[in-house]
Amino acid sequence: MIMVTDREQAIFEAAIKLGALYHQWVGTPVSPGTAPLLAQAIEESVKLQPFVKNIQVHLDTDRMTPNPFGYSEVNGLMFDVHIHTRWGKATCHARLSPKGDYPMMEIVECNEDFELSGH
Amino acid sequence: MIMVTDREQAIFEAAIKLGALYHQWVGTPVSPGTAPLLAQAIEESVKLQPFVKNIQVHLDTDRMTPNPFGYSEVNGLMFDVHIHTRWGKATCHARLSPKGDYPMMEIVECNEDFELSGH
Amino acid sequence: MIMVTDREQAIFEAAIKLGALYHQWVGTPVSPGTAPLLAQAIEESVKLQPFVKNIQVHLDTDRMTPNPFGYSEVNGLMFDVHIHTRWGKATCHARLSPKGDYPMMEIVECNEDFELSGH
Amino acid sequence: MIMVTDREQAIFEAAIKLGALYHQWVGTPVSPGTAPLLAQAIEESVKLQPFVKNIQVHLDTDRMTPNPFGYSEVNGLMFDVHIHTRWGKATCHARLSPKGDYPMMEIVECNEDFELSGH
Repeated sequence: MIMVTDREQAIFEAAIKLGALYHQWVGTPVSPGTAPLLAQAIEESVKLQPFVKNIQVHLDTDRMTPNPFGYSEVNGLMFDVHIHTRWGKATCHARLSPKGDYPMMEIVECNEDFELSGH
Repeated sequence: MIMVTDREQAIFEAAIKLGALYHQWVGTPVSPGTAPLLAQAIEESVKLQPFVKNIQVHLDTDRMTPNPFGYSEVNGLMFDVHIHTRWGKATCHARLSPKGDYPMMEIVECNEDFELSGH
Repeated sequence: MIMVTDREQAIFEAAIKLGALYHQWVGTPVSPGTAPLLAQAIEESVKLQPFVKNIQVHLDTDRMTPNPFGYSEVNGLMFDVHIHTRWGKATCHARLSPKGDYPMMEIVECNEDFELSGH
Repeated sequence: MIMVTDREQAIFEAAIKLGALYHQWVGTPVSPGTAPLLAQAIEESVKLQPFVKNIQVHLDTDRMTPNPFGYSEVNGLMFDVHIHTRWGKATCHARLSPKGDYPMMEIVECNEDFELSGH
């Protein structure tokens, strides 16, 4: 196994969770009325996974075009997710949100404790 | 298209929902602490689908053997689900629950209104 | 447990498989080039399940609008699926295919052996 | 947006794909006979995603304990996956495979072109 920095590990863990939640929950029947509870269930589920410090999930109700039966299915563009992971001294904040027509996952910020403490 | 009775349609709709929820949620990270909210999210989601009168979802926490990181993933044997569908004059009550080592889906009861009303 | 006819059981089993495959495979990255192999994998997977006599899966490449990275994800409207189940003396042929903007599941035909054999 | 190295981006992309494929395919009906085609379908699907250079998927047939109907479902411990991503000058090789009873995802190796070329 190679040397991997804490920051790289925190990045790795954040990305796993974003990829995982996307493909776990896409296809779920949803409506504006059920979106908040569903988002909360996703948050609780992801928080169980290792190295997750925090996660916020928002499902964009404006993108929930109702089908003839009055509901929608979760698709990638509905997600606005912020995840924060920690590995050792490093943290990673990553995001899943629409960039044009693509549900983009990207690294927002990374920190290491020595930076925070000013040492 | 052939002639299909209301009762057959109610059966058809109940089975769709059981197959759907199984494969939508299997694999979701879960723990005894998050199971009630997850079950509620599944219920709300399935209730959006057409011809569903009612659904109760229970996730068996006794089957949640924690992995080294302290959580489990939803598997088929954790489900105890009762679904009630209606089509026209007929209703169907179907169930997903363990039968030995198999997560069995089966028809519990069907009713038609003329039976209920005694005509 | 109530009395259920062979035909009703065949209907029940067909619907389970349609609901299941839909929610198992929605979200899978796909392109016109990979669609045939993916469809074959879905067919082989569903054929493992009980009471399935036959299944044909077609993924509509015309609905695969490429994202900025050149691929799509399986969505419900891409499916054209015919499934044939058997229970005892009865068979059921059901279908998943677009009806307007909705991926509709419906019963196409049911048969019972005494009809076929003329007895 | 912060400064992220090519190596960190390659790591990020590899992890997304591992998390994604895990939760896309867990639950799929499988048997030793269908495992090779399913593994190939997973490979083709993941190769469509951006920044993927290569992927090898093996599904461990020894872990496919047949249920009463003679098939299994994909679970996390069946996976042995190697993925190689590239971002700019950097590559990342990551793996999903069982570590005891946990389906572990980890970074195996990273390289950058200047290292390879000796500059």
